[in-house]
Amino acid sequence: MLGHSLLTQFEGMSPHQITVPFVDSEEKARECVARINETRRNGNARPIVFSTLVNNKIRKILRQSDAFLLDFFEMFLDPLEAELGVKSTHTIGRSHSAGDKKQYSNRIEAINFSIAHDDGIASADFDKADVILVGVSRSGKTPTSLYLALQFGIRAANYPLIPEDFERLSLPKPLDPYRRKLFGLSILPERLREIRNERRPDSNYSRLENCRYEVQQAENLMRREGIRWVNSTTKSIEEISTTILQEFKLERRVY
Amino acid sequence: MLGHSLLTQFEGMSPHQITVPFVDSEEKARECVARINETRRNGNARPIVFSTLVNNKIRKILRQSDAFLLDFFEMFLDPLEAELGVKSTHTIGRSHSAGDKKQYSNRIEAINFSIAHDDGIASADFDKADVILVGVSRSGKTPTSLYLALQFGIRAANYPLIPEDFERLSLPKPLDPYRRKLFGLSILPERLREIRNERRPDSNYSRLENCRYEVQQAENLMRREGIRWVNSTTKSIEEISTTILQEFKLERRVY
Repeated sequence: MLGHSLLTQFEGMSPHQITVPFVDSEEKARECVARINETRRNGNARPIVFSTLVNNKIRKILRQSDAFLLDFFEMFLDPLEAELGVKSTHTIGRSHSAGDKKQYSNRIEAINFSIAHDDGIASADFDKADVILVGVSRSGKTPTSLYLALQFGIRAANYPLIPEDFERLSLPKPLDPYRRKLFGLSILPERLREIRNERRPDSNYSRLENCRYEVQQAENLMRREGIRWVNSTTKSIEEISTTILQEFKLERRVY
Repeated sequence: MLGHSLLTQFEGMSPHQITVPFVDSEEKARECVARINETRRNGNARPIVFSTLVNNKIRKILRQSDAFLLDFFEMFLDPLEAELGVKSTHTIGRSHSAGDKKQYSNRIEAINFSIAHDDGIASADFDKADVILVGVSRSGKTPTSLYLALQFGIRAANYPLIPEDFERLSLPKPLDPYRRKLFGLSILPERLREIRNERRPDSNYSRLENCRYEVQQAENLMRREGIRWVNSTTKSIEEISTTILQEFKLERRVY
């Protein structure tokens, strides 16, 4: 992901990207070197290798390849060791939540919550929600709530805004006591049409005029009720989720 | 996440970690500097700052703080620019899938698939699954399948192994045609007991002997049927998912 993110900074280049996980033996490192050198011999540009290996013996092998090597740990750990005056442990797989039971339950609990409260099912325990996402059908509520659960352990319910709500000119009743937890997602009508059309082609549901009507009404409703919202057309799920954490000053419960 | 991952390499240190997203103006950068310097003035060790800022003006402001600054882009982009002989664009938010419609639908489709096929519901279109996770109840199938969907756009169904399957000494019927897609999750009985006990305290379901029986039978069944599996007790969801990608040679459909 590090390498991918950096390469997006070079416009017009779309290098072939390969991920090789779990290079945890000298043999596997030698296989990598062979593969890199073969790529080079086949007349390609010098391969760029992003390495997060921590084992010194394995790193040494990889360094012998005919590649431009960016070694994550060398670039960061050496300066950090100097700053902290402590040697790092050079152990692998410490950054995820395996083994941390509290984090594991935070995650599972949030996922269960998110699934149990998807699309307005079960509004009984909205008081346990960290945030309740609202928006028209297919505006991105479900993936956002699952991402919040998986990545941050945040309990996000989601509740659809439907034409009946627009006619009533008011929030759905179950949301009323939880106004401070509401966060809206909107979307460009043209994009909504595409998404809905994949699901129900040539229906009134996916018709552009209907999408325009629903989006406009939903935005009016959110504006009237003072609900903050973002547009999911141009923001990734990652960005929307980070925005939500920040808006509600939520601390992540999973690392 | 980068900083967090690096700091886990220093044992016995648990520095207070703060994430400040969206530093996208000079004013916000100055607020950061004030906050960093105040932390320092309050008698703390020199703050360590991991920066992924790309805007030059904003980076320059941050560099004036009294911090040990590790600048992600300086450390990687400068050498990459030299290697590629091209200037990078220094634009933000390019690394996620917003705007890439194909990736967005891959993700949504995989999430819908995962939810529709959670816990053995709907075995009708298992032929569309990339992988089908099997294991006893609460062995980690649901979070893994959702992670695969969200992070990689992989369609993962999941199907529980239950006592009836153990008595019949055979795979559940709906799985039979899809043996090559099966991947197992197992778990330590002691850990399973804890997880189940949070859900249904003091039940037979969560009793240690019952957990032991189910886990042993499930592992016997998987061994007999030649199903590969990993133990979710010591592996994070991230590691399990990466293992699955590799085992089935699946390419990620979302970046």
